[in-house]
Amino acid sequence: MEIIKTIVDFRKVRLSLTEPVGLVPTMGYLHEGHMSLIRQAKMDNSSVVVSIFVNPMQFGADEDLDRYPRNMERDLSQLQKEGVDAVFVPSTAEMYPIHFSSRVEVDNITQRLEGASRPEHFRGVTTVIAKLFNIIQPTRAYFGQKDIQQAIVICKMVADLNMNLIIITLPTVREPDGLALSSRNSYLNRRERKAARVLYQSLMLAKKLWQEGERDAKTLHWEMVRLIRKEPLAAIDYISIADTKTLMEREEVKLPTLVSLAVKIGKTRLIDNVILE
Amino acid sequence: MEIIKTIVDFRKVRLSLTEPVGLVPTMGYLHEGHMSLIRQAKMDNSSVVVSIFVNPMQFGADEDLDRYPRNMERDLSQLQKEGVDAVFVPSTAEMYPIHFSSRVEVDNITQRLEGASRPEHFRGVTTVIAKLFNIIQPTRAYFGQKDIQQAIVICKMVADLNMNLIIITLPTVREPDGLALSSRNSYLNRRERKAARVLYQSLMLAKKLWQEGERDAKTLHWEMVRLIRKEPLAAIDYISIADTKTLMEREEVKLPTLVSLAVKIGKTRLIDNVILE
Repeated sequence: MEIIKTIVDFRKVRLSLTEPVGLVPTMGYLHEGHMSLIRQAKMDNSSVVVSIFVNPMQFGADEDLDRYPRNMERDLSQLQKEGVDAVFVPSTAEMYPIHFSSRVEVDNITQRLEGASRPEHFRGVTTVIAKLFNIIQPTRAYFGQKDIQQAIVICKMVADLNMNLIIITLPTVREPDGLALSSRNSYLNRRERKAARVLYQSLMLAKKLWQEGERDAKTLHWEMVRLIRKEPLAAIDYISIADTKTLMEREEVKLPTLVSLAVKIGKTRLIDNVILE
Repeated sequence: MEIIKTIVDFRKVRLSLTEPVGLVPTMGYLHEGHMSLIRQAKMDNSSVVVSIFVNPMQFGADEDLDRYPRNMERDLSQLQKEGVDAVFVPSTAEMYPIHFSSRVEVDNITQRLEGASRPEHFRGVTTVIAKLFNIIQPTRAYFGQKDIQQAIVICKMVADLNMNLIIITLPTVREPDGLALSSRNSYLNRRERKAARVLYQSLMLAKKLWQEGERDAKTLHWEMVRLIRKEPLAAIDYISIADTKTLMEREEVKLPTLVSLAVKIGKTRLIDNVILE
């Protein structure tokens, strides 16, 4: 497994990778969610590249960039075991040299949900992902459904800017009690970890109500709010019942509908979603 | 010579082009300036692609999009003669389908000179050029020095976003009296055409003063203004004496310095520049 720190070195290694090439972009601190992406990438492609880069541009000034969990040694040993061909681990200075002043923006869908709470977040995501695509030149790139808006925004960027690759989104991997795997789960203490189940529980409640025939988005919304408010450690950031493409809020639940939410458990902000389809 | 109208078709043709591939992006109405780019591209590469697309996104609402000169038949016959391998001539709907909502932005240097007069111009340029690079995937792309800020902005975008190609900028091709070739010269009537010589004359005046030892940017500036004001059909939009990289205005003329200007001759806005080096 090649471990590559610079763009110049990656371009050389890239020439030796057999096509097609799958890319799994990550911020490290890998969990089974990442592993499911890597395993699918291995099945679909002749070579697999994983990038590990905690991207400062997608963190707000008051967000958790500094305390975002990192464990490069463990990550690399896991990737080695999975048979990954190359790992790209650039420094911040390598990705954002002095006088860096370009960006890729997707309008409209980036303003809703996560974008409403984190106004410059997706600009950071699209810019770094465009850079990674240009450096790594993958045939396919893999993203998890947990960050569904990110996947939708990236698909829009790829389509609008005619980037020549395929985006694949894979299902969220969950703990036995339903909590979506996330590197940020490591922030949770024991009480918070237990409280965090309420995200998935509220999504399952919405799904159940819908299956029982409820079509009013407001009703789903308020039933989710009611459930989450029973959990004293939880504070709702948003709950959204929206069109899966435009991310515009729905009044009536038609298929497919994205039910998504962001909830603070103590100081930790968690997100999750299900698609009704 | 293949003439290709859709992105899907171009992707197919691209597979048959031998590497390296040179791209000359144009808005059509081709002149000897374009031809000099194409001839250099032919010398440097095994295949040459020319794109012809009058990009609405880089025109302001009150600019000359509708009257921008077009002559597709003549353009294609010229390209055929030059031995171009493929011409990409997409429609506006092909490049900007409904709900298109992405853009590539370069900050800072896009705010000066042309960007000060045409605030959304470079966003249109960088977005369409990023799209063309992703569709055509050239090894090298060729731009003329006449639009020097465009070339500088594109180089910055390519560097910042790690686009995997080489940008080549070639000298401005001029009429015998010095007027830089431009598709917009076709707007000029006989009197205006004569008046338009003042752009190059003022640049040559600045160069001469510099060669004679003048190092004060303000003096160069005002001597240029004085000369241009003698031409009753000319109205200065800007004159700039700036750093060639940052495009920040200089007080003292150090090498290299970019002397550039935009002047309206009647209703036609023309630009030109020289580099003192």
